[in-house]
Amino acid sequence: MRTIIGVIGDSDPAPETAALAEEAGAEIARAGAVLVCGGLGGVMQAAARGAKEAGGLTVGVLPTYDAQSANSFIDIPVVTGMGHARNVIIAATAHALIAMSGAHGTLSEIAIGLKLGKRVVSLGRDASPAGVVPAASAREAVRMALESS
Amino acid sequence: MRTIIGVIGDSDPAPETAALAEEAGAEIARAGAVLVCGGLGGVMQAAARGAKEAGGLTVGVLPTYDAQSANSFIDIPVVTGMGHARNVIIAATAHALIAMSGAHGTLSEIAIGLKLGKRVVSLGRDASPAGVVPAASAREAVRMALESS
Amino acid sequence: MRTIIGVIGDSDPAPETAALAEEAGAEIARAGAVLVCGGLGGVMQAAARGAKEAGGLTVGVLPTYDAQSANSFIDIPVVTGMGHARNVIIAATAHALIAMSGAHGTLSEIAIGLKLGKRVVSLGRDASPAGVVPAASAREAVRMALESS
Amino acid sequence: MRTIIGVIGDSDPAPETAALAEEAGAEIARAGAVLVCGGLGGVMQAAARGAKEAGGLTVGVLPTYDAQSANSFIDIPVVTGMGHARNVIIAATAHALIAMSGAHGTLSEIAIGLKLGKRVVSLGRDASPAGVVPAASAREAVRMALESS
Repeated sequence: MRTIIGVIGDSDPAPETAALAEEAGAEIARAGAVLVCGGLGGVMQAAARGAKEAGGLTVGVLPTYDAQSANSFIDIPVVTGMGHARNVIIAATAHALIAMSGAHGTLSEIAIGLKLGKRVVSLGRDASPAGVVPAASAREAVRMALESS
Repeated sequence: MRTIIGVIGDSDPAPETAALAEEAGAEIARAGAVLVCGGLGGVMQAAARGAKEAGGLTVGVLPTYDAQSANSFIDIPVVTGMGHARNVIIAATAHALIAMSGAHGTLSEIAIGLKLGKRVVSLGRDASPAGVVPAASAREAVRMALESS
Repeated sequence: MRTIIGVIGDSDPAPETAALAEEAGAEIARAGAVLVCGGLGGVMQAAARGAKEAGGLTVGVLPTYDAQSANSFIDIPVVTGMGHARNVIIAATAHALIAMSGAHGTLSEIAIGLKLGKRVVSLGRDASPAGVVPAASAREAVRMALESS
Repeated sequence: MRTIIGVIGDSDPAPETAALAEEAGAEIARAGAVLVCGGLGGVMQAAARGAKEAGGLTVGVLPTYDAQSANSFIDIPVVTGMGHARNVIIAATAHALIAMSGAHGTLSEIAIGLKLGKRVVSLGRDASPAGVVPAASAREAVRMALESS
């Protein structure tokens, strides 16, 4: 069984957020872990691009029944047709989550991750709510995610 | 079609939170609306009790396949077997949400409610994250929930 | 807690199927039970109309996030946004299912109903797969659904 | 994006069914496709073993929140916590399904697969309901699954 790390965040991020997501994806791949994300654009696409360019494997958990909606860096589109409930699957599938800048969808994933006892590492966003632990860099975020038991 | 108002919060609340939830449930019933909640104990049970004692109708969206897990004030147990993904159904089914003291599960419902454009009214808890609007009493919370378009 | 009976079937039924569904809905209401269905058109609408005209209560478990997609005889739209996974909720919420003429969606509900140990009564369709029990009339179908333990 | 083929069937199969499932998994891997299955025992485990022994990649869509419930041949456990609703995800994620001997759970996956317009190939079971196409061998089943558009 492979170790799977989630990267969650905005579908319309600032350039520096996208760059950080790409770096996180690359670090996940270099560590030999699998990336799971929401499979669409923005942070999801940047993290997947980073993982692929570093030779990794990427899983995108999609909200619709359209496998083709996955960004072009997704190896394994998990097609749910379940709308926002797919956020629960991302949180449950990941060993730990790296949360980047994002809005309500990202917050729902953080909340479910904490509820399930997963480590949630913030990268480039506030370490909130309580329980989220901050990382200073993509490399540190991935290390913290992998170290969680 | 009936108007449905959600009450969300802790399964192990402080007595004053439970009292407030019961009052909110009663106000929902008096307004002629239907209560939706998670169907289990704590805030969910107190709100359902309040609604039933005021002659209302109650819907409990359950996480397991066990209809008997519903508290005794639930008229309509919606049995999902979908674990935390049932939180999405509560947020999507409610016209508006009244959020009381609670932890990560409650936060996930608030986040999905906001994502879906629902009004989320806080009652006896901080009005966070941004977008949540505070109410000073159960009556005001229900009025604000019903007024949202 | 109310007893809830499901009626499942085609969204584009023959007139005699719709008439039978309406009769089944009415019988459910006369028996004091609640109708659960998929909330949309065809068999779902006919059963809900029958239940409402007999003074009953109707629950529609909807596949999208659009509560307005419910037919006009639904009292309680349960809004899931979960696509075909809402079929599982219908089967799990119903005490027993009455299966009418329908295609793959209906078959998925029958299969999940049987998997969950629910009685599945066929009305105006073959009693298949094994485990489905046939009824000769809407009245008999409702009686058999209510008698199941 | 990888091509993903589903193998569905009983968790307690006859030995010849398990042998056929293992062969199907191996053929999927040899064809360069990814196996998706329910991640647990029986047909799911046999297919995953076959795929791994042929050097393939395996995805198991689990019904609970316990990633450790995956059989030991699963590379990517997709953790849903959604009970039988995970069957919908298997059908939606697979490009095509190979249906083996199984009961109500398998039938629900076949029905959803057909509903979603996927090719469903039967292997060692009746080609029912209408729309399922029979294969005479594991190799033929995988070829038919891969050829579907």
